[in-house]
Amino acid sequence: MGAPSFPLPPGSTVGIVGGGQLGRMMALAAARLGFNVAVLAREADSPAGRVSAREIVGGYGDPAALRQLAEISDVVTFEFENVPGAAIAALEADGYRVAPPGRALTVSQDRVTEKSFLNAHGLPTVAFAVIDSAADLPHALQKLGAPALLKTRREGYDGKGQAWVTNAVDEDSAFVHIDRRPAILEARAPFVRELSIIAARGRDGAMAAYPLAENQHEHGVLRRSIAPAEVSPALAAEAERIAFTLMGALDYVGVIGVELFELADGSLLVNEFAPRVHNTGHWTADGCQVDQFEQHIRAVAGWPLGPTAPLARVEMLNLLGDEADAWPTLAADPTARLWLYGKGDAEPGRKMGHINRLTPL
Amino acid sequence: MGAPSFPLPPGSTVGIVGGGQLGRMMALAAARLGFNVAVLAREADSPAGRVSAREIVGGYGDPAALRQLAEISDVVTFEFENVPGAAIAALEADGYRVAPPGRALTVSQDRVTEKSFLNAHGLPTVAFAVIDSAADLPHALQKLGAPALLKTRREGYDGKGQAWVTNAVDEDSAFVHIDRRPAILEARAPFVRELSIIAARGRDGAMAAYPLAENQHEHGVLRRSIAPAEVSPALAAEAERIAFTLMGALDYVGVIGVELFELADGSLLVNEFAPRVHNTGHWTADGCQVDQFEQHIRAVAGWPLGPTAPLARVEMLNLLGDEADAWPTLAADPTARLWLYGKGDAEPGRKMGHINRLTPL
Repeated sequence: MGAPSFPLPPGSTVGIVGGGQLGRMMALAAARLGFNVAVLAREADSPAGRVSAREIVGGYGDPAALRQLAEISDVVTFEFENVPGAAIAALEADGYRVAPPGRALTVSQDRVTEKSFLNAHGLPTVAFAVIDSAADLPHALQKLGAPALLKTRREGYDGKGQAWVTNAVDEDSAFVHIDRRPAILEARAPFVRELSIIAARGRDGAMAAYPLAENQHEHGVLRRSIAPAEVSPALAAEAERIAFTLMGALDYVGVIGVELFELADGSLLVNEFAPRVHNTGHWTADGCQVDQFEQHIRAVAGWPLGPTAPLARVEMLNLLGDEADAWPTLAADPTARLWLYGKGDAEPGRKMGHINRLTPL
Repeated sequence: MGAPSFPLPPGSTVGIVGGGQLGRMMALAAARLGFNVAVLAREADSPAGRVSAREIVGGYGDPAALRQLAEISDVVTFEFENVPGAAIAALEADGYRVAPPGRALTVSQDRVTEKSFLNAHGLPTVAFAVIDSAADLPHALQKLGAPALLKTRREGYDGKGQAWVTNAVDEDSAFVHIDRRPAILEARAPFVRELSIIAARGRDGAMAAYPLAENQHEHGVLRRSIAPAEVSPALAAEAERIAFTLMGALDYVGVIGVELFELADGSLLVNEFAPRVHNTGHWTADGCQVDQFEQHIRAVAGWPLGPTAPLARVEMLNLLGDEADAWPTLAADPTARLWLYGKGDAEPGRKMGHINRLTPL
């Protein structure tokens, strides 16, 4: 490949697996720094592909397509946490430069592996049990207490592939609901708030975290983030410890999103992590000097991380489905910074854009 | 064409004539609002083309290439003030939607026409004389006083195509220096500061201006802008009057850059205007909620103009030629917001990028 060494100079090519809005915003950030972008997208003319120099069409797990992307890229990254970890690991094994590491995908893609990994590194999660068949449910429910949340071990996001289990009657129907796939039963987290921390680790091991965001979900989909969240210094420090410990354990490079539950006593549990830029970090695009997208590009390109201090208080609201049709009103609202993703089909619940509302700190 | 009416909905295509850094930053802004971008560039793989969905290669005055761009665009705009005004006017005559109007190009492309237009609308400039041959110089120099600045009427930027004339000995050599082209002799402006105002006019006639920038040139090339410039309210109001009068007179749509001389008594002269986004407005990309690039896209797409209030004080420094090689240092400087243009060849004096340094207002 004859690729330049890190830090990659401007003019190098960043390959992004995934053609959606996260890839699009990463591509825009890469362009600001003088990089070229190549995208691997499942369909031509993708939101990310339309703002990139090159677009390859293929499956995210297709070894040939991934190799084709890697061949024209100086570093490969991804916008999507369900890119098969093994496919990324295969690229790494072939000597292509990839970040974040494939291992971060492998760990995060299986909820049992993810929670076990977190616990093994001293990072607290809800109690959980492995469910291989409906027969495992009664004992697990007894151990974890009712109600508990049954989730597929793999895939499923935005609330899909999940079912609450309250009693014996539910057990079977819940398992049917998730298509009898290998599952995890999670104890209910008695949380008072959902928080998240967006952090980054550079190739030199340097780490930085943005202030926490407080998040509200509706029907399993993020509706609203407010950042910086009002939290105690102790809680902020614990969130940072969690993110930094996790990144260190994964030998991570790039931006990571860690979803947290705050309990009534102020302690934190890790809900899950995503080895990529994160919807709850979109506030940084208008609220910080270097946003999560540029931070990710800096990290994977071997550049120094940028500052993470907030410049303003930001309320981020997702525009779901036809909510984005309100663009004429939103464009006329001087308090709203409007981001639209260039997606064609406004299916119900689909993330079409977001707005950031800024107020002074 | 069956193009949608204004305001253009997200998903519409903005055509940009010009493949350089101004087109690139316009394309990035358009992408944030969900637009697609097509670029007409003189060479393939241009800085703007690499962040756009479509790139057409052709001359900026090539009627076939311009028509090809217009055919796939819902509105056509330009990044370059030397796009032949007649070519743009021809597109307009054919019913394609273009903004800013071709007339703004025609007026600004000839320094005599430009100053005459400004004066006719009550906007002050330096005194000037038309120079068609060297024989016109003695009388003009006597009228305007020495030294005076001889410039070609057309083209020439960043100090090219200019020569100072002090006395009879200079007259001939100056005319030779500018290749004996039709020229203008301009009285020396006894300015104390160079200022500029970036303003915008929407399709509904609404107008907005950013705070003034104070500019420093070196060898005829912009080195540094500081904004908001420290000026009296009266001066700011006069600058706004100039920009708004000019835009009204041109029935302008889009962002305009007006370069001003501040005289010792606080009065202003118009140096020249550029019917496009402007280097002295790059500070807005980190210093304002809606920057000049998004403002331009909003205007040409028929969207409402965005707010122009400053969020910070910004010092913008151009990175010329190999100065951009300092990117590793600049990337590590938490006070610098780095912009690189994706240009290959760092010829001396070529604009390769810029940095914005922010301080609280």
